[in-house]
Amino acid sequence: MKTVKIGSVGLGRLGYEHAKNLATQIPGTELAAICDVNAEQAKKVADELGVKNVYSDFEEMCSNPELDGIAIVTPSFLHTQQIEIAMNHGKHVFCEKPLGTDVQQCKDAEKVVEAHPDLIFQLGFMRRFDPSYAEAKKKVDEGKIGKVVLVRSYTQDPRSTIEGTLKFAPHSGGQFLDMCVHDIDLVRWFTGANVKNVWGLGDAFEFDLYKELNDADNAVAVLQMDNEAVGFIFANRTHPAGSNVETEIIGTKGTLRIASVGAKNLLEIIDENGAHQEYYQDFLERWHSAFVAEMTAFTNHIRNNTKPTDLTVYDGTAVSEAAYRCKESFESGRVVLPIR
Amino acid sequence: MKTVKIGSVGLGRLGYEHAKNLATQIPGTELAAICDVNAEQAKKVADELGVKNVYSDFEEMCSNPELDGIAIVTPSFLHTQQIEIAMNHGKHVFCEKPLGTDVQQCKDAEKVVEAHPDLIFQLGFMRRFDPSYAEAKKKVDEGKIGKVVLVRSYTQDPRSTIEGTLKFAPHSGGQFLDMCVHDIDLVRWFTGANVKNVWGLGDAFEFDLYKELNDADNAVAVLQMDNEAVGFIFANRTHPAGSNVETEIIGTKGTLRIASVGAKNLLEIIDENGAHQEYYQDFLERWHSAFVAEMTAFTNHIRNNTKPTDLTVYDGTAVSEAAYRCKESFESGRVVLPIR
Amino acid sequence: MKTVKIGSVGLGRLGYEHAKNLATQIPGTELAAICDVNAEQAKKVADELGVKNVYSDFEEMCSNPELDGIAIVTPSFLHTQQIEIAMNHGKHVFCEKPLGTDVQQCKDAEKVVEAHPDLIFQLGFMRRFDPSYAEAKKKVDEGKIGKVVLVRSYTQDPRSTIEGTLKFAPHSGGQFLDMCVHDIDLVRWFTGANVKNVWGLGDAFEFDLYKELNDADNAVAVLQMDNEAVGFIFANRTHPAGSNVETEIIGTKGTLRIASVGAKNLLEIIDENGAHQEYYQDFLERWHSAFVAEMTAFTNHIRNNTKPTDLTVYDGTAVSEAAYRCKESFESGRVVLPIR
Amino acid sequence: MKTVKIGSVGLGRLGYEHAKNLATQIPGTELAAICDVNAEQAKKVADELGVKNVYSDFEEMCSNPELDGIAIVTPSFLHTQQIEIAMNHGKHVFCEKPLGTDVQQCKDAEKVVEAHPDLIFQLGFMRRFDPSYAEAKKKVDEGKIGKVVLVRSYTQDPRSTIEGTLKFAPHSGGQFLDMCVHDIDLVRWFTGANVKNVWGLGDAFEFDLYKELNDADNAVAVLQMDNEAVGFIFANRTHPAGSNVETEIIGTKGTLRIASVGAKNLLEIIDENGAHQEYYQDFLERWHSAFVAEMTAFTNHIRNNTKPTDLTVYDGTAVSEAAYRCKESFESGRVVLPIR
Repeated sequence: MKTVKIGSVGLGRLGYEHAKNLATQIPGTELAAICDVNAEQAKKVADELGVKNVYSDFEEMCSNPELDGIAIVTPSFLHTQQIEIAMNHGKHVFCEKPLGTDVQQCKDAEKVVEAHPDLIFQLGFMRRFDPSYAEAKKKVDEGKIGKVVLVRSYTQDPRSTIEGTLKFAPHSGGQFLDMCVHDIDLVRWFTGANVKNVWGLGDAFEFDLYKELNDADNAVAVLQMDNEAVGFIFANRTHPAGSNVETEIIGTKGTLRIASVGAKNLLEIIDENGAHQEYYQDFLERWHSAFVAEMTAFTNHIRNNTKPTDLTVYDGTAVSEAAYRCKESFESGRVVLPIR
Repeated sequence: MKTVKIGSVGLGRLGYEHAKNLATQIPGTELAAICDVNAEQAKKVADELGVKNVYSDFEEMCSNPELDGIAIVTPSFLHTQQIEIAMNHGKHVFCEKPLGTDVQQCKDAEKVVEAHPDLIFQLGFMRRFDPSYAEAKKKVDEGKIGKVVLVRSYTQDPRSTIEGTLKFAPHSGGQFLDMCVHDIDLVRWFTGANVKNVWGLGDAFEFDLYKELNDADNAVAVLQMDNEAVGFIFANRTHPAGSNVETEIIGTKGTLRIASVGAKNLLEIIDENGAHQEYYQDFLERWHSAFVAEMTAFTNHIRNNTKPTDLTVYDGTAVSEAAYRCKESFESGRVVLPIR
Repeated sequence: MKTVKIGSVGLGRLGYEHAKNLATQIPGTELAAICDVNAEQAKKVADELGVKNVYSDFEEMCSNPELDGIAIVTPSFLHTQQIEIAMNHGKHVFCEKPLGTDVQQCKDAEKVVEAHPDLIFQLGFMRRFDPSYAEAKKKVDEGKIGKVVLVRSYTQDPRSTIEGTLKFAPHSGGQFLDMCVHDIDLVRWFTGANVKNVWGLGDAFEFDLYKELNDADNAVAVLQMDNEAVGFIFANRTHPAGSNVETEIIGTKGTLRIASVGAKNLLEIIDENGAHQEYYQDFLERWHSAFVAEMTAFTNHIRNNTKPTDLTVYDGTAVSEAAYRCKESFESGRVVLPIR
Repeated sequence: MKTVKIGSVGLGRLGYEHAKNLATQIPGTELAAICDVNAEQAKKVADELGVKNVYSDFEEMCSNPELDGIAIVTPSFLHTQQIEIAMNHGKHVFCEKPLGTDVQQCKDAEKVVEAHPDLIFQLGFMRRFDPSYAEAKKKVDEGKIGKVVLVRSYTQDPRSTIEGTLKFAPHSGGQFLDMCVHDIDLVRWFTGANVKNVWGLGDAFEFDLYKELNDADNAVAVLQMDNEAVGFIFANRTHPAGSNVETEIIGTKGTLRIASVGAKNLLEIIDENGAHQEYYQDFLERWHSAFVAEMTAFTNHIRNNTKPTDLTVYDGTAVSEAAYRCKESFESGRVVLPIR
């Protein structure tokens, strides 16, 4: 099996997760380089994970001829320019969501990807690689639930970490852009349709900061798809039980639910409150196997010279566009905006 | 304990359920009269349940001085006129939902009720009397889940009975009026707020008849309440597992779910498909204890000379009005209509 | 429908439940008489439930020619003599468990029942009438799970009521006789076999009183049935979540579980502990519908002149005998005692 | 981080799982050698996993000075002699269960381990490393459920693979030795006690071959521990839903359940049968993370020069001894045998 060599940029919390997975969890893969503006952090991680090449300049890393692909796990505003640099150096690219910070950036990225038809481009919609989500999609594609009529998807952050969340709030882009993009991706993926109309609702029910930011601590987005299926998305920052993402797909012949109870394991506890299961407390823990699976898919594509067929750069644009419309709808008070 | 005497009108499927409950399940209560346009059916039920007085004329039954109250379980278009007749004869009234077939009828009913301040009027929103829903409401009122931000409520009819459903479809009033009124009542009850804006979506995904009727086999209604809480309502006619009503109430500090799995009992079956629980197949079976509880409440009000405090004729009007707006929104393709 | 008239003796907690059900919940049935040594309590209940005849002498009640059947809900030591009195007066008999306080009493009762072949005798193994248990039995009889190889049955009392339980302990007969008889009945019912060998285990893990009484606060009984199926029974007095009875039936082709989570209703609560369901706190609440169903069956047998076919006086003897063997095994430290 | 180098012997189904995990899933670990009597298979796996050294002679592999530890995943009858060879060559040893094929072998292994106090010895009771089991143990140790009074543990093989199971049956050692050892380990681990008395029950309910082998297709073992806690173990070969291991730990103050529903992921399917979750079909899939975790623990012990404190060679002996007593009890028909 040919060893695939990856360089990874960005060593924040998620960047470190990807780096560690690339270094230790994916057969036939070598994390051959890492890059971060924080040279000290890059050095430390390189030592821990046994990475040979350490960079603080992204383009320099991309110039390393040893590397097959680049994993971009940097702040969002850097994504599109780094995609361009990496591809111009002939590297396959894995890029974390979102594709860009506005629709124009996304469309620019589309052009870059189109200009390099031989290179693989994969977006970090990792939920699709989670075993439960992947199996749900398989059942939908097999027609097990008939036509999809409703996709309901919740992303809920633990109330216990609200302090940190509030600090980050002014720079997050707001719930629709920061939290809902994964859910919008799922709605499009499971319905096989594009967004036609949206309505953004919700309010700052408890934390005034969100009101100041013209944002919500509990936000709702309703998507009418162009095949009349409906997406119902809910994002909140005040979930009591932990970090929870759940999705329901209702078809004309059956229903699938993922994480209806978001139990972190198979342990059930019976105490004076009855019987309960504990939730994941942390999204990295929840999605660990999905992060490994998406990188495994990426390195397999490189090794086998294949491409993701149903996860393209255009999905990144479409999701971002829909998220912006939700935000506009919510902010304007006007209730629905046609897309395109 | 004073025996409360009730006359019941309408002996269809639900009418028979109420009659039987009044005759056999409610301590201190006597089903003293029944009335139906089908005299033969009335006679048969009277024999079975040991009812002394049988009528085919409603006003004649209301003239019986022995009766304390009247239960109206007739077709919707008769409700308001029968409320008026009963109250004019000094009878307390229990009336099945909906209050009226249009908003004007509801407002007329309001006036009748206002004109008889000494008489009890109770609407058949029986879900409120189901033990699970009643306990959920108690926890909400106690502040256990903080502020209510989202109420999601599904009413799903079994696909197995679709033939009968389709036959009834042209006369049902459509999903929003026929199915969603209970859910709209729950949204108002749990949020403690009124409907501000609505959006009706969905489609006839499988049964063309609904398209011809300008209706949906899978319908969605989104309610923006006047305190910014959101109601999300889904009604479908194609539920594979049985008759299912489920409701979720998300608050800023906790979440309550009723019938997340609509198991008809405590039996779990492990077979080659894994572990599963069977759903209720029939709404009368699902709501039996709620039907008993609401009639028990009605007869207790009569005995104790009390009134329902949070279930009034105005709730009936508000729910009907919201249901009509959903229908208009769905039919017009225009997406949202302000109420009032 | 012929009205069946019942006289009920014993107005303790369970006696009151049965009396109230007979008076108000069972179509075609009249609670025509009650009897209790506490004349004041009998008078009070008679007033509340509208019972015409009140007795403090049991034989006097049995002499009332109006009565069709007698419900015996008195302390166990009175059961067999009251069965004899009632039957000698030509009354059908419903008797609460246990049949007798020792095996000899049970055998005496068998003779009484045999001497009155025209009279109905029904024992109070109400679990069989619970909707979940009844449906499990139906599936077993239909062969849905193949041959039954293991029946596991737990009876758990709430720790929250341990004070009262301890007070009652010296007069309870011990866990095997007091708690396990229902489970032994279920094991025999579901396996369709008789007990061959037993082993009683367990200990007073927390409450020394049980040690003094040569009893256990957590008791186990293992039953080897004469078809090699196994019964595993667990009784404890320290269940944190409420009053819980659960049963599992493992067959060669499937498994059935009743009350694997003993949720009292369909409400699920998501809070900082995860997702949980609340248990029944009280056995009367848990078994209400079963108590109604068994009395409905009893009065139907009287009306229709039929008899219970698979719940006979001999089941009462067999269950008591097995419970005594478990107790002997536990007390002697000798591990297994052949039965018969 | 020092790289730990392991040689692995035995490349059957489980042997391959361990080899692949050592080669690709465990940071800081190198699978530096593999050994199998089937040289071709060894070569093939070495190529796939990039293993440098390939052996068909076990002692030769143990002579490789590069290796820090040996993983023994061979047929049971080879375990003790291979432990001795490896330790005599100064290698740390991970050995799959069971320790030996009879108690004498286990005691011999104890002496070997005692003779090499500087070497690590770890037994393959991987369930302890499963996240759900590990967390249950943590809660027990923290006193969350009070004193442990009952441990119930089931090991169920899928009925769908019965053909292969039957072929293997004559060489399996029987259910008590082949399946129940893991459960016996769990009972000892969770109760913190030793086995005092046992009773083996069950029968060949469906497959005559087991009768011929004096074995059962559904086997029960009851363990009375020396602190009076009870272990209840059930092993069957006819589980309809898949590969299922579930365990319940009842304490005086709470209950823990692992895999009460053995769902393989977070997907729930609602179809005409109600709501269900699918089970794991294969034990390697079920225990993958546990296999990785136990090898991670083993290599960490080597790197950090620590030893497993509560999983020693003596646990292997005690478990095997108890399993033999269960087998003797079952075969003899005599019901209980004191241990020691």
